[in-house]
Amino acid sequence: MKKLKRSARLVEMTQYLLSRPHTLISLTAFADRYQSAKSSISEDLAIIKEVFEEEGIGQLQTLAGAAGGVRYIPRMPQEPAMEIIQGVCRELELPERVLPGGYLYMTDMLGQPGLLADVGRIFATAFADRRIDVVMTVETKGIPLAYATASCLNLPVVIVRRDNKVTEGSAVSINYVSGSNKRIQTMSLARRALKEQSRVLIIDDFMKAGGTVQGMMDLLHEFNATVAGVGVFVESGEVGTEERLLEDYVSLAKLTAVDMKTKQTTVVPGNYFTS
Amino acid sequence: MKKLKRSARLVEMTQYLLSRPHTLISLTAFADRYQSAKSSISEDLAIIKEVFEEEGIGQLQTLAGAAGGVRYIPRMPQEPAMEIIQGVCRELELPERVLPGGYLYMTDMLGQPGLLADVGRIFATAFADRRIDVVMTVETKGIPLAYATASCLNLPVVIVRRDNKVTEGSAVSINYVSGSNKRIQTMSLARRALKEQSRVLIIDDFMKAGGTVQGMMDLLHEFNATVAGVGVFVESGEVGTEERLLEDYVSLAKLTAVDMKTKQTTVVPGNYFTS
Repeated sequence: MKKLKRSARLVEMTQYLLSRPHTLISLTAFADRYQSAKSSISEDLAIIKEVFEEEGIGQLQTLAGAAGGVRYIPRMPQEPAMEIIQGVCRELELPERVLPGGYLYMTDMLGQPGLLADVGRIFATAFADRRIDVVMTVETKGIPLAYATASCLNLPVVIVRRDNKVTEGSAVSINYVSGSNKRIQTMSLARRALKEQSRVLIIDDFMKAGGTVQGMMDLLHEFNATVAGVGVFVESGEVGTEERLLEDYVSLAKLTAVDMKTKQTTVVPGNYFTS
Repeated sequence: MKKLKRSARLVEMTQYLLSRPHTLISLTAFADRYQSAKSSISEDLAIIKEVFEEEGIGQLQTLAGAAGGVRYIPRMPQEPAMEIIQGVCRELELPERVLPGGYLYMTDMLGQPGLLADVGRIFATAFADRRIDVVMTVETKGIPLAYATASCLNLPVVIVRRDNKVTEGSAVSINYVSGSNKRIQTMSLARRALKEQSRVLIIDDFMKAGGTVQGMMDLLHEFNATVAGVGVFVESGEVGTEERLLEDYVSLAKLTAVDMKTKQTTVVPGNYFTS
């Protein structure tokens, strides 16, 4: 890269850091990249750090020493996160979203890259302090959420299949009981998709009794992996606590009431905001 | 937002633009956001534009006039794109990726957010000049690629299901013949997932004869929608041209030979680079 003026260098460094979340970049690497003294680079980083932190973009962690450098950690502060989720709740309450069985149509919302990026950032903030190796979800609708979260955390995604596709190689399958309708279902994961001992963040779009998440946990057990966290976009609060299979999870929104006759629903911010 | 110094403003504007691709932002909006004169904002944008274009990050389109402003268009120049895809080819040629039936295991690669972001940017560049309303894929492995592409284009994603889930509402289903193994399969799309007359970019991870893509095109016909482009990550060149159901598509890599005995494969850059 040719030598840049400070103003241009700030622009380039900002985009460089933003596109490499959770990646340690040494001062030396920056100094080489921009053909500049480490002292100048440090000054630039101080400016970027202040803006990122003041404007709620994220943290710029500085690690001192020979192995030191900086690392960009995307964050979403509680207040803008709450605002986004309140918008999601209003949107989810539209009567035309009510589907047979007390489900909500939200596929269109999960198809908006802008909203997904925000939600991924909220999940990444919620689980920032857990040590995580991989983000896992089950096909289909949880996939974009899992990727959005994994992008912020710079982690790989593993997708559990509801079938056992030829293109995956040998796989481990388990049966699980979907908590709300008691049907027995199958999910499987390719043997090579997940290393043993991995610490896994489970992300899903919707949780009723938690049978699907419980199934993923059982599957993780087969891989000697550990659940480092569970995040669901919307939980159904219509399920009694005694029916809930799962205790420890983060939800961003909660469906508290569905009236199938009037198609009126109530959606409120989830336990991430209230607990 | 409190008033920032120019250096801090450049950092904030850079992240603001990067997180809003294909979105027109008026000079007035920037001037208000940063409590600065439009002339200062224009100078800042000129700096950002130069860096974005020099460093191959993307274009900053300037629209003059009362409705004017700037729009960030993510781009990946041909040279770094080729480098990334050559890395993909080398990685795909590893013998342990060969699966029964001449398939390649590439789920792990499609699970890496960094690579996906790059590939999405390459697709977004390849289809930059088509007028597109929505990006479509079929579950499961095309989903992350579709989202990565849609993020760069700031477009919604529509996922065609291989079943007909209760949580989608009324749906249109079609049968299609998978081109390579001649099996009849079903795919479906929720009625409300796609507006009539939409211009659709189809993205998928792997294409042999093109039966799945052809199925999606037939489905689009049911919605009176138009195919604005077809992008596949890897195509199998093992299929004879007479068997190929599809002519007009962009591939990023091409599997030209698979020797099941020795597990040797050859993967080369696709038609995006050669045609």
